[in-house]
Amino acid sequence: MQRLVLHEYSRSGNCYKVRLTAALVGKDLERREYDIMKGETRTPEFLQSVNANGRIPVLEVNDRLIPESNAACYFLAENTHLVPTDPFDHADMLHWMFWEQYNHEPNIATLRFWMRSLGPDKVGDLQRLQMPAKRQQGNAALKLMDDHLAGREWFVGYEPSLADICLFAYTHVAGDAEFDLDRYPHVREWLARVQAHPRFVAMDA
Amino acid sequence: MQRLVLHEYSRSGNCYKVRLTAALVGKDLERREYDIMKGETRTPEFLQSVNANGRIPVLEVNDRLIPESNAACYFLAENTHLVPTDPFDHADMLHWMFWEQYNHEPNIATLRFWMRSLGPDKVGDLQRLQMPAKRQQGNAALKLMDDHLAGREWFVGYEPSLADICLFAYTHVAGDAEFDLDRYPHVREWLARVQAHPRFVAMDA
Repeated sequence: MQRLVLHEYSRSGNCYKVRLTAALVGKDLERREYDIMKGETRTPEFLQSVNANGRIPVLEVNDRLIPESNAACYFLAENTHLVPTDPFDHADMLHWMFWEQYNHEPNIATLRFWMRSLGPDKVGDLQRLQMPAKRQQGNAALKLMDDHLAGREWFVGYEPSLADICLFAYTHVAGDAEFDLDRYPHVREWLARVQAHPRFVAMDA
Repeated sequence: MQRLVLHEYSRSGNCYKVRLTAALVGKDLERREYDIMKGETRTPEFLQSVNANGRIPVLEVNDRLIPESNAACYFLAENTHLVPTDPFDHADMLHWMFWEQYNHEPNIATLRFWMRSLGPDKVGDLQRLQMPAKRQQGNAALKLMDDHLAGREWFVGYEPSLADICLFAYTHVAGDAEFDLDRYPHVREWLARVQAHPRFVAMDA
């Protein structure tokens, strides 16, 4: 039996992805919380023993460590229905997961972090200058998702995969960063499909 | 027999990754060039028929399309020695591939693009303001790689994997963005190991 420990900051969507994946595949996680607002993932001890990159989530599996949310999700879901076996569908799932980290998370999650976690008073000048571009690129990401989901239930093939889980995490809280999801009706319907999964767990659970 | 077409801009490190992977696993690619400086990946036709995200590379496989460089590399290398079969090593490979897209490429590749492709005269004010942070984060990425490679030959386990290929692409041209690789001796030795592979192909080949 593998002992699975999630090193996390529970308000992070990247950490929630890992919890949601574990729930959908029926695996138990121990949870260890770090307050990133207090620098708890930048201490010498964390950098030495958990992640030299100073970030959460990190999935601990027995004595080994897996940083990067989407890699941790893959580890938990390997050989389950959430990872397609068809080589093209598998690559398409990875396409959406890499896209999420490059085009979606740095815009939507970063704006959410600045606006909600850091707060307006603590946003620096350089961050403020980047906000319009992140707003525009975040809306472009949501539009691309909405167009893709027109006439489709899930991002890849005909069943939910890790692509859906990884994209769900920050999309369903995009309103925290004042993105208007009413503009993206296919996205809203897809969010509801994910939430209707019998093993779904909410972000604040 | 699969027909493989790479839609690319050949000076892009992300496109080079896909060519290097194909070379190492012995697959032939047709190549179709787009000049991103002339907006050739943002035309209505490209957005409609190649990639709604307006980016290269895209790997075309018969009638299907795989955007995102690291997903295309995975498709080409699946079931080869470049993708570890051990589940932890596999997740560790993905960890480095996601890390590359989040922590390495947006700093090192973006600075290279601004400094070399766009050129100093065309860098906008907001880009210029972001340069110091990208310089600092790019050096942090190279330092993390250097520390990881101390006493190791390859990023994951004891053999080259896609993690090495995906990280090689922009690291070996980091000098284009005025990163000083002499500060990272383990990285330099690892670059030489990749270049010594009998099937290695150079970026400008």
